[in-house]
Amino acid sequence: MRRWNGWGDDTHQTELADFAKALIAELLGQTRPLPNASLQEVVQSVPQTRAPDHPLIDKSPEVRIKHAAGQSFSDWIQMRSGVFTNIPDAVAFPETSRQVRELMDWAARKDLILVPYGGGTSVAGHLACPVNDKPQITVALTRMNRMLDFDRESQIATFGAGVRGPDLEAQLAAIGYTLGHFPQSFELSTAGGWVVTRSSGQQSLRYGRIEQLFAGGTLETPNGTLEIPSIPASSAGPDLREIVLGSEGTLGILTEVKLRVTPLAEAEQFYTVFMPDWESGVAAIQAITQGRIPLSMMRLSNATETDVSLKLAVPENKLSKLNMLFKLRGLSEQKCMLTFGLTGSKKQVAANYKLANTFLKQHGGKRIFSAMLGDKWKEGRFKGPYLRDALWEHGVGADTFETAMDWSALRPYINVVEQNVSNALKAQGIPVFAFTHLSHVYPQGSSAYTTYLFPLASSYEETLQRWKIIKKIASDTVVAHGGTISHQHGVGRDHAPYLPAEKGKLGMSALKALSKSFDPDSRMNPGVLIADDTASTREQA
Amino acid sequence: MRRWNGWGDDTHQTELADFAKALIAELLGQTRPLPNASLQEVVQSVPQTRAPDHPLIDKSPEVRIKHAAGQSFSDWIQMRSGVFTNIPDAVAFPETSRQVRELMDWAARKDLILVPYGGGTSVAGHLACPVNDKPQITVALTRMNRMLDFDRESQIATFGAGVRGPDLEAQLAAIGYTLGHFPQSFELSTAGGWVVTRSSGQQSLRYGRIEQLFAGGTLETPNGTLEIPSIPASSAGPDLREIVLGSEGTLGILTEVKLRVTPLAEAEQFYTVFMPDWESGVAAIQAITQGRIPLSMMRLSNATETDVSLKLAVPENKLSKLNMLFKLRGLSEQKCMLTFGLTGSKKQVAANYKLANTFLKQHGGKRIFSAMLGDKWKEGRFKGPYLRDALWEHGVGADTFETAMDWSALRPYINVVEQNVSNALKAQGIPVFAFTHLSHVYPQGSSAYTTYLFPLASSYEETLQRWKIIKKIASDTVVAHGGTISHQHGVGRDHAPYLPAEKGKLGMSALKALSKSFDPDSRMNPGVLIADDTASTREQA
Repeated sequence: MRRWNGWGDDTHQTELADFAKALIAELLGQTRPLPNASLQEVVQSVPQTRAPDHPLIDKSPEVRIKHAAGQSFSDWIQMRSGVFTNIPDAVAFPETSRQVRELMDWAARKDLILVPYGGGTSVAGHLACPVNDKPQITVALTRMNRMLDFDRESQIATFGAGVRGPDLEAQLAAIGYTLGHFPQSFELSTAGGWVVTRSSGQQSLRYGRIEQLFAGGTLETPNGTLEIPSIPASSAGPDLREIVLGSEGTLGILTEVKLRVTPLAEAEQFYTVFMPDWESGVAAIQAITQGRIPLSMMRLSNATETDVSLKLAVPENKLSKLNMLFKLRGLSEQKCMLTFGLTGSKKQVAANYKLANTFLKQHGGKRIFSAMLGDKWKEGRFKGPYLRDALWEHGVGADTFETAMDWSALRPYINVVEQNVSNALKAQGIPVFAFTHLSHVYPQGSSAYTTYLFPLASSYEETLQRWKIIKKIASDTVVAHGGTISHQHGVGRDHAPYLPAEKGKLGMSALKALSKSFDPDSRMNPGVLIADDTASTREQA
Repeated sequence: MRRWNGWGDDTHQTELADFAKALIAELLGQTRPLPNASLQEVVQSVPQTRAPDHPLIDKSPEVRIKHAAGQSFSDWIQMRSGVFTNIPDAVAFPETSRQVRELMDWAARKDLILVPYGGGTSVAGHLACPVNDKPQITVALTRMNRMLDFDRESQIATFGAGVRGPDLEAQLAAIGYTLGHFPQSFELSTAGGWVVTRSSGQQSLRYGRIEQLFAGGTLETPNGTLEIPSIPASSAGPDLREIVLGSEGTLGILTEVKLRVTPLAEAEQFYTVFMPDWESGVAAIQAITQGRIPLSMMRLSNATETDVSLKLAVPENKLSKLNMLFKLRGLSEQKCMLTFGLTGSKKQVAANYKLANTFLKQHGGKRIFSAMLGDKWKEGRFKGPYLRDALWEHGVGADTFETAMDWSALRPYINVVEQNVSNALKAQGIPVFAFTHLSHVYPQGSSAYTTYLFPLASSYEETLQRWKIIKKIASDTVVAHGGTISHQHGVGRDHAPYLPAEKGKLGMSALKALSKSFDPDSRMNPGVLIADDTASTREQA
């Protein structure tokens, strides 16, 4: 069953190996877990619902709790402490667009707040809606999970927006197709969620971001239904798809999505190559991307992430042999792991492997257990979030943040950001351990994804404070370097204060105007995207 | 010098060859030209300007006339008859974003209408603004034509938005780069114009549409300046670039554009192959696109366009030999010309030629003078619009319309649209000759581009009526098949009545809300994008 206060299925337990514990002790000193609240305890503390009756809603405390938060660090604090700032008054489970329409009209009549819920995987505070004067209904789209139409000739599949990654891929695989969208949250996140948060999958180099995959669909809004037709490309005015993409539930609820799918590829392979250092690694991926070599994924870990990944992926007894091999091949501790994938016909995979290898060799790349380590990456590609649970139980807070920026901005940023994050709690004498990789590489620049670990404090409140300090320093560093506040996680409430730096005053006004146009009574997901202090001025705009 | 009442430079004269004239007589019967008004005549009829004084504007009648219209068929009627429904009160020639800002603030103080003017190449009625109670200033961006910044590492070049295609490419070529954006209007159209009308270049298969090339920039709006930063990709809310793309001057004036450029390719080659018929041609381009073979362009002419193109491209004495060759190779009159381009490193070009050829052969493609005809296409790629002038002087009206739709919709559409257009004037006993090609091919579908010729009537008024009837039938057919009202020409005033079919009621409201957010007094390009009857309700929205 889905873990109510953490990631994934609770039959899947991740344990920290002894060497991982030793590594943590070395990096962060002694760490101690915080006591977890039990589901029963929390159920007993759930306030009375204010929701009126409706056949599609469930008011039971347990269901309400299970839809009260996502996977943001502050959500975790709530789920683990059992102290929620807010719990929805009810959860609706529509099965069709028509039922969502009914809920929308009912919400207007009863003056309710609506919060759409896809996979509950947001790491940016999309789901923990603050208490509102009006009752809050969370609309779970989980039951809208079927393929509704398939246009084989145009390669367009229409799905219920609540379909999760594995269910979507299984339905497509049955007819020989794939969407190819694999974010790390794939096991739980949903097609509709991907669209409204502008998600990017691990193989975006081949399949594109969700922006390129989303061909159209149905958005139920307080003001009516918006049908976006599927058209391959158009010059007929601003693109409505691009208004729905990233709207994060503030305009309405996406109920059906038309997706551009691809026949299952004949061949797919992942490889790992070791680059002498960060600079040579960056130069190689830049050359490959700008040279338009059609790989399906590429990821460059910095030296710290390379070191940690190897320690976690390779059994201890083999690691020392591997390290000798590195030395023999002239690789120092500065080495950076570069993993890449190839997908397509056998001919394409073979041809592109050759082309990529030319660039990698030019920049000093060494193949060592190349295919084996590539397979390891593939095997573990969705496992990362489970580790958070094991770390938490060991008294370690783990979080990530990510951005994208132009190459010219990225070089100075990378140098600064890890230093800033590592020193974020220095005044209190608390270590923070950070490491970074580039993935989602573009000719123009790249995303940069930083993971950090820090010791939990002795109270939830203090732990939250620690996280807030780190989060602020990280976000400020991103913004100061001209990066987007998020390349793939969305804005939610956690990033909303930083959005004006990117969109500008006029841009924020435009977003508010759009919101008002679809949702004149500010009923949809208030506080998401547009920060609360500016949201209140929405009325006057 | 730029031709004041037609296309291009007036030193470049296109004459119809005798066989072309014979072909026209065969298709359309006897045709007779209409009398052209002279520039002097029109200058004398220009009404008094209502514009207040400003150092950046020119009120001379000749300059005003030369900025009164674009290249839409109804614009041609105005330019050739000399009877303009409206002539701007003045033309401004800013040289910097700051000067555009000044003009914007001046327009607010004096309550003026502003119409941005890029290359004046619109074929959708963007420029012929109807008479307004307020004085109209057309803002010509022609002098904002320099590269302002170049970020070599991120491959981003910033240009003044008024830079024309050849000037842009020349400045980039000087440093070893290309934008790769080559619409047929390339010689005259501008970077800013491409962005605000969502233009697509002939090599969009490689370089992408302007949506993919436009990384950010500066929009001066009545409400202030919108700076869109260049970021490779972002999940931070709806994409502001996509609001400016296709805004057609209704939100403000784009003054600077940041463009994603590419190093000049090592190799480029175009080839023509003959497919047995339309169905096999469509199957081949579908297979190549869906198989992700990275060509740089692909175009499939139907049998009629193939026939006409060969007659126009191949000298008569060689044509009969060519026809014998077709017979020998088993090609009938159903044959369809498929032209494709390859661009990249020598290795890539060679590898992709092989991959493409496999598909072409599978579908019965025959190479006959393949490289020579490919070169012919390249040679004439920007010459099409000049032909309009020669046809006009011969008494023939020529126009085009285009759309894009999913493959599943496209097959029935193609069968119907040429028939509808050919029969558009049947009730009056007037022939219309139409032919079609697919270009801008996507895995999901394709654009379809139809050219048609018809005899001019004995008066301008009646000629305009003929065109209106054809235009309406063509547009209705596009809309009835679920196509976009334009894949690459934009909306302007000609297509505005058809936009609601595509965007829906809520979509149109959203566009109006955006317009109001940037331009609360409806000062910018009124009637474009949002049809006049709905524009008047903008005030109340």
